[in-house]
Amino acid sequence: MIYLDLGGQGPGLVPAAGAALPIGDRGFLLGDGLFETVRLSKGQMDLLPLHLRRLQRSADALGIPCDPPAIGEAARAVAAHHPGGEGAMRITLSRGTGNGRGYAPPPAPAPTLLITTTSYRPPSAPLQAVTASFMVNRLSPLTQHKTLSALEKVIARSEAVSAGADEALLLNGEGRVVEASAANIFIYSRGSWFTPPLSEGCLPGVMRAQVIHLTGAQERPLTMEALFNADGVYLTNALMGCLSLASIDGRALPISADPPAFTAHLFKPL
Amino acid sequence: MIYLDLGGQGPGLVPAAGAALPIGDRGFLLGDGLFETVRLSKGQMDLLPLHLRRLQRSADALGIPCDPPAIGEAARAVAAHHPGGEGAMRITLSRGTGNGRGYAPPPAPAPTLLITTTSYRPPSAPLQAVTASFMVNRLSPLTQHKTLSALEKVIARSEAVSAGADEALLLNGEGRVVEASAANIFIYSRGSWFTPPLSEGCLPGVMRAQVIHLTGAQERPLTMEALFNADGVYLTNALMGCLSLASIDGRALPISADPPAFTAHLFKPL
Repeated sequence: MIYLDLGGQGPGLVPAAGAALPIGDRGFLLGDGLFETVRLSKGQMDLLPLHLRRLQRSADALGIPCDPPAIGEAARAVAAHHPGGEGAMRITLSRGTGNGRGYAPPPAPAPTLLITTTSYRPPSAPLQAVTASFMVNRLSPLTQHKTLSALEKVIARSEAVSAGADEALLLNGEGRVVEASAANIFIYSRGSWFTPPLSEGCLPGVMRAQVIHLTGAQERPLTMEALFNADGVYLTNALMGCLSLASIDGRALPISADPPAFTAHLFKPL
Repeated sequence: MIYLDLGGQGPGLVPAAGAALPIGDRGFLLGDGLFETVRLSKGQMDLLPLHLRRLQRSADALGIPCDPPAIGEAARAVAAHHPGGEGAMRITLSRGTGNGRGYAPPPAPAPTLLITTTSYRPPSAPLQAVTASFMVNRLSPLTQHKTLSALEKVIARSEAVSAGADEALLLNGEGRVVEASAANIFIYSRGSWFTPPLSEGCLPGVMRAQVIHLTGAQERPLTMEALFNADGVYLTNALMGCLSLASIDGRALPISADPPAFTAHLFKPL
């Protein structure tokens, strides 16, 4: 079962098979919307309050109406129907259908809410990465939001897949490491943890916040050189948690034999 | 009537009312696709071959299958049903439904093609613009394509609307003028025409190519100062043609009393 609400008109909880979107949805036409990806484990939605908080903050910034309690309730109904209780949930909130053509948002948007689940298996650690062929813009207003305008990330990930790698590292115009296409990045160096500050152009990842909280990581711009000089490099997101990165563009990184102890607590609310 | 083809499965030419998109379309989920906006005039699709050529070039770059003759034929069928013969056509080509979740494109995409028409009235010239609050990335692989990941342009246009203006000017990280949210920019100065080169981060606009051809415009990076020192500043796109810009952030620009003579030829194939 999925949940679909088209501008407050329902239909609500329905089988995936019959569900469809209007052709005028601005999510489809303009990438005008947001999403969250939530881990399902033992039938529970891990870290849902953090996901809903980020969704609301971004929706407020973009002027998309958002009702986190109602979204949470709908998500619980979908999760209850997910077979086996393990997997990934996607919550998509678009600005809905507009009023005619053009970029300008309608004055009173009636958003589309779509909640689906799929099976999910984390990739095998340690991960392999390539460097994306292009620089990202740390000054874009999109960096701070998980948006439906994700084609740059699709291109980066596509480059990784073509190279037989798991992920693509994104560098900003200053040549510093920002994140991966679907993960934040941390390094462990001389007993301390570091991750780039959001001003470098990173998504404020839910798992990034968890790892900062658990490790006391300091926010500091990271050069590619810093990665190769570290004692360990890790990629984090709300589905896979925190996994070691083993190489970049075929060049080996130092990896620790054991996962850090804090990773046992990644999916617990802090 | 609209035209909708879901991965080669049709339904084809159908009334807009019943048409719907699958909830798994990557256009909706990830802004993974392209579009063209074509002027309809006297029942004709102006400059359609140029639009289809750009669509094909971008689809090739992104690895989205694209069949321009078939799209042209479908577009003609939709245009024939557009009431009155004047308006705007939108051709949307997404990568279709994927294979499960995540950014990685499916190995053999089955694209979604949607062709719709709406009424259209050009804005009243001269236009008013504001400067967008953020810089755009001239190094993004998206700048050269008219993509469904258009949320930056939505935000920019939204800022213009909030300020009571028609358009938002986008500057790149170097602080130079790139384009407007939905238009390219030209200046007329001491008898010559200038427009920024594509390397500044501009969309290769269909109307931009027409204006370069008709005026012999030179491609040259443009500072904001160059705009205020010009003898005329113009915004161009395939719907409105070439219109004067009268002000930026409330500061008046020099505008010529008469539209340039070449504008009579803008929509004729060259």
